[in-house]
Amino acid sequence: MQSKKIKVGIVGGTGYTGVELLRLLAQHPDVELSVITSRGEAGLPVADMFPSLRGRVSLVFTDPSQADLTLCDVVFFATPHGVAMSQAQALVAAGVKVIDLAADFRLQDITVFEKWYKLPHSCPDILANAVYGLPELYREQVRSAQVIGNPGCYPTTVLLGLAPLLEQGLVDLSIPIVSDSKSGVSGAGRKAEVATLFAEASDNMKAYGVSGHRHHPEIQEQLRQLSGVAPQFIFVPHLIPMIRGMLSTMYVKLTPEGLKTDIQALYETRYQREPFVDVLPPGSLPETRTVRGGNHLRLALYPQAETGYLTIIVVQDNLVKGAAGQAVQNMNIMFDLDERTGLEVVPLLP
Amino acid sequence: MQSKKIKVGIVGGTGYTGVELLRLLAQHPDVELSVITSRGEAGLPVADMFPSLRGRVSLVFTDPSQADLTLCDVVFFATPHGVAMSQAQALVAAGVKVIDLAADFRLQDITVFEKWYKLPHSCPDILANAVYGLPELYREQVRSAQVIGNPGCYPTTVLLGLAPLLEQGLVDLSIPIVSDSKSGVSGAGRKAEVATLFAEASDNMKAYGVSGHRHHPEIQEQLRQLSGVAPQFIFVPHLIPMIRGMLSTMYVKLTPEGLKTDIQALYETRYQREPFVDVLPPGSLPETRTVRGGNHLRLALYPQAETGYLTIIVVQDNLVKGAAGQAVQNMNIMFDLDERTGLEVVPLLP
Amino acid sequence: MQSKKIKVGIVGGTGYTGVELLRLLAQHPDVELSVITSRGEAGLPVADMFPSLRGRVSLVFTDPSQADLTLCDVVFFATPHGVAMSQAQALVAAGVKVIDLAADFRLQDITVFEKWYKLPHSCPDILANAVYGLPELYREQVRSAQVIGNPGCYPTTVLLGLAPLLEQGLVDLSIPIVSDSKSGVSGAGRKAEVATLFAEASDNMKAYGVSGHRHHPEIQEQLRQLSGVAPQFIFVPHLIPMIRGMLSTMYVKLTPEGLKTDIQALYETRYQREPFVDVLPPGSLPETRTVRGGNHLRLALYPQAETGYLTIIVVQDNLVKGAAGQAVQNMNIMFDLDERTGLEVVPLLP
Amino acid sequence: MQSKKIKVGIVGGTGYTGVELLRLLAQHPDVELSVITSRGEAGLPVADMFPSLRGRVSLVFTDPSQADLTLCDVVFFATPHGVAMSQAQALVAAGVKVIDLAADFRLQDITVFEKWYKLPHSCPDILANAVYGLPELYREQVRSAQVIGNPGCYPTTVLLGLAPLLEQGLVDLSIPIVSDSKSGVSGAGRKAEVATLFAEASDNMKAYGVSGHRHHPEIQEQLRQLSGVAPQFIFVPHLIPMIRGMLSTMYVKLTPEGLKTDIQALYETRYQREPFVDVLPPGSLPETRTVRGGNHLRLALYPQAETGYLTIIVVQDNLVKGAAGQAVQNMNIMFDLDERTGLEVVPLLP
Repeated sequence: MQSKKIKVGIVGGTGYTGVELLRLLAQHPDVELSVITSRGEAGLPVADMFPSLRGRVSLVFTDPSQADLTLCDVVFFATPHGVAMSQAQALVAAGVKVIDLAADFRLQDITVFEKWYKLPHSCPDILANAVYGLPELYREQVRSAQVIGNPGCYPTTVLLGLAPLLEQGLVDLSIPIVSDSKSGVSGAGRKAEVATLFAEASDNMKAYGVSGHRHHPEIQEQLRQLSGVAPQFIFVPHLIPMIRGMLSTMYVKLTPEGLKTDIQALYETRYQREPFVDVLPPGSLPETRTVRGGNHLRLALYPQAETGYLTIIVVQDNLVKGAAGQAVQNMNIMFDLDERTGLEVVPLLP
Repeated sequence: MQSKKIKVGIVGGTGYTGVELLRLLAQHPDVELSVITSRGEAGLPVADMFPSLRGRVSLVFTDPSQADLTLCDVVFFATPHGVAMSQAQALVAAGVKVIDLAADFRLQDITVFEKWYKLPHSCPDILANAVYGLPELYREQVRSAQVIGNPGCYPTTVLLGLAPLLEQGLVDLSIPIVSDSKSGVSGAGRKAEVATLFAEASDNMKAYGVSGHRHHPEIQEQLRQLSGVAPQFIFVPHLIPMIRGMLSTMYVKLTPEGLKTDIQALYETRYQREPFVDVLPPGSLPETRTVRGGNHLRLALYPQAETGYLTIIVVQDNLVKGAAGQAVQNMNIMFDLDERTGLEVVPLLP
Repeated sequence: MQSKKIKVGIVGGTGYTGVELLRLLAQHPDVELSVITSRGEAGLPVADMFPSLRGRVSLVFTDPSQADLTLCDVVFFATPHGVAMSQAQALVAAGVKVIDLAADFRLQDITVFEKWYKLPHSCPDILANAVYGLPELYREQVRSAQVIGNPGCYPTTVLLGLAPLLEQGLVDLSIPIVSDSKSGVSGAGRKAEVATLFAEASDNMKAYGVSGHRHHPEIQEQLRQLSGVAPQFIFVPHLIPMIRGMLSTMYVKLTPEGLKTDIQALYETRYQREPFVDVLPPGSLPETRTVRGGNHLRLALYPQAETGYLTIIVVQDNLVKGAAGQAVQNMNIMFDLDERTGLEVVPLLP
Repeated sequence: MQSKKIKVGIVGGTGYTGVELLRLLAQHPDVELSVITSRGEAGLPVADMFPSLRGRVSLVFTDPSQADLTLCDVVFFATPHGVAMSQAQALVAAGVKVIDLAADFRLQDITVFEKWYKLPHSCPDILANAVYGLPELYREQVRSAQVIGNPGCYPTTVLLGLAPLLEQGLVDLSIPIVSDSKSGVSGAGRKAEVATLFAEASDNMKAYGVSGHRHHPEIQEQLRQLSGVAPQFIFVPHLIPMIRGMLSTMYVKLTPEGLKTDIQALYETRYQREPFVDVLPPGSLPETRTVRGGNHLRLALYPQAETGYLTIIVVQDNLVKGAAGQAVQNMNIMFDLDERTGLEVVPLLP
């Protein structure tokens, strides 16, 4: 446990992952919010933009050019892709830890990064040492990391949903793994766009990114890590008329060995010491609202006896375990705090 | 009944009143959709933007500079304020009827118009002959009008909710009339704005325009017409997380004469021949969904015995009776059709 | 075209499929609504329960014991499973046509029916002659049918989404077909239940029926018809916070022949004369709101080059093409009307 | 500060106020959840009914007949009206404090209680000593109370919205006070009812209780306390398609003295030491989501210069400050804890 507070900086706090970081960090006992930058909103008190923070956050947005982030212990980037990598070098040089909630440090394969994000990567050496911040898979690496690529929301559900099987080699990889995923609209961010207006997105649903979504290569790179091969993977995300919440329904064919395994026990054992992964009892039907505002990911398992398939359903709050909560979890690990610190908010139901 | 079809032009068909006009006119037996203009979308088939119209509307958006609107019998303006008045002169000169769904021809008092809309009025002579298109109050004038200022959505609910009382002088005008009004989010239009994003407007509500809303002077001008004096009027609109629907709750103090009157009978008599005004039985609680997609306005009356007040609740679909449906109703009157033609769609419930 | 109107009876008009039938039939030019029964609501005007029908439907609910349904030309059953089969014998004997919107006449295999619906089938002889009312597959049989089992909502999306492939033998049936389906909450009916309360189902989603849903055997029986074999089929339905709307995302492996086929052209050709099936252009992303209130089913196709799979996305309004609209479409065919009569309502968007 | 934890019992924990109490108390550092009763669910782990509490609440529902509530320090009743008064006598005799979230101890006038709740009051002597648990008005009485009648949700907004004016006599009481109030659907409770189904209440709104709502007499009794007279009061509640959230828009006529007063300063001064009342800066538009899940009530003031009226808008979370949060606030006061203990959850936005 720390004796003094962690000085935290946030770059880009006007989006949904930004305000979510503020919500969680404002309740974190070991954190001092030092600086938050925004080019467009410099001078505005944060609580004027997000009145939910009135009385809890007294920071004012600072112009990036005026902010000395090297005085922080850790800086979170809640920015579009490309921002974190442009500032990482200076921060790393100053000994500041970096947690990027965008994609700059998620993909180790630079060619893939540049293809999907249409940006040259400006600091491949830092990337090479960056850690993919999924604590349930890489806790030890996170502990000593200087730079974290915080996972995408969809990848978190898919990877934690599949890891116990892939680690044991129980999936028949001659058949594609399918993840049919569904996200609340906050996942699209706080950008003014017609497609996510209330009158467009409410009482309506659709698939999107069917021919290619940026989380596809991220998931594939990690599936390769987990399985040792490059599995075929079909990924279809859908936009659902709810603010928060993400649910992935995965369909995998088990190997003969997998068919003989007690899958429920396997998952329970694998995750028994994980504070934020909850394996539900057999027959449960996970609902997204059971994690609304909380950092838990809950999952359930349904063997399909007739086909030899396993259906796996995973839920999380896309803004918490899928973004800001996971980032705080990573910070806790990096600063040797109890991993749950500041993250024990009970989900809001109803 | 016409032997040949009415040639209709629409200026600005990419917003919600535009697509709603298209929905209604596509089902109208006496209309031929001739042209629809859009600067930004020229060349795009309308049904590509609004796939609900696939197979029903084959028009392509035309650049305004390429469209000869003078070949139409009537032109609807589903545009921002200021567009209709810039084109009205030429259309009127060519004998084309004009129905403006924005505010250019709603307010007879030009000073008030210019104060609230921050625009000089470019054709005061046409305005002087324009008719406020609320058929239940001005049907005869609509019949012979060349230019219609189609009423605002809130004013339609307030004026039809109060007309029977004001026409009979039954309201104590020494006390302000209060209208606490609520609108679905489509009323804010199809503009990309943060405030009306799903993740902002859903599971949330707020008042807006409390210190002044453009429908306030419009309502006041009409209240003056109805009552012969300028009544005090307090108007607070609210944004409600539903796509369509508008509900106004009005609070008025009755005169001693009003207190002796059978108000229910008064309203039923006043509106008995109106095809689109439905006075509900005593004790009813109007729901917005009972008019979803339909051109009806439904209302109910609640005398407050202890206070001598009357509470009036009015519902409509803001995009139909509050905008596009009323515009088509006006067109039907202007072209001597049965007023209900093309407007007999049964509301969608649930 | 008929010279006189079709006399229609509805048994059980207090649920969502009932009010939806009323909405459509009230706008149908060749129909006379003769009688609607309800045990619980006898004596109540239908429009008192559903004020959206005020001025359009003047029927009063009749107690079943007082209603002589044999005077009708056709009777729709919008009732729980088991009701239609208890009355079908008498109606058939009287020459009345029957369209059951529940499951009594959907499954030809009585053993399967009795297993899933926990009811003995009371008129297997009538079932043997009943027709599965999916016009796009069985139009000729519908034309001469006396009794129609109107398809379930999910099966309509799955079967029309797969038919062109299965008819041509282009699916590799050694691999299970997966349908990940999503439904609006109205699909659960108008029963008072905690799980579908607004405060439970809003801003939330979940899967249900993962271990077995009644539409599974219905789909499997029809897949067998289409393919000649009994394909493996995995079906996971989900509950989505929208009133209406259904979207099925299907994942199938193509045969080598299928991989060489122009799938888009295959579907366009197969459905080119179908008034209610709309094959969207390549790259389209179907939204449920584009069919809200309309009888269209729209679909799009996404070949997954790397895996040899095809993803198929289908949308419909679960209460229209998925229930009442399809029932009216069947009626139109049975009475030799233009199939589109009364069903040309333009969907409500937004 | 206590050295040992407060033993808490909850009677009736299966509704929304019950689960909300559990959410808040599970995060309260000075509370030990001892027992929760439910007749219908005895034996069921609470977290099986509400999986959001998994890992946080290990209690199992106990049958009321098996629960010895006299071992508790305080018992919360989250039950229908009539339950608390049937058990209060025994608990009070045993020295247990009682906080009733229903109406049994809200109205001092028994005649009014019996008229509106259709129940004889079974313990008028306890009622006479019960305190109306609105801390901002009755903090000292709460401190020493044995039995608390926790205020209704609507009354909390109306009374805190009006108190500063009425305490100073600045409202012209010859004119009725109007409160046009709006509530999210969770206010209707977790009962299986058709009217609050998702498919009924979503994308829809309505007024209800226009001719009489049980919160009307409760508000009037308190207005009398505040003003010394019995002001006329018009109250119209509305049902809004959101889960949580309440907004009251109030219209009052100011006295000449009131018109000369700096109303903003008056409210800021009145509430400056209140931890849970937030007077927003002039021109603010309170949104319900800014208090979602939090115990704050926020308000804004709009003088209507032309009419001499003041419009007051108040928002709260109906389940927190309007119910369970306020109950915990009362408990904190009764047990001499910092009033904010366990209530510092930052609201969930978006």
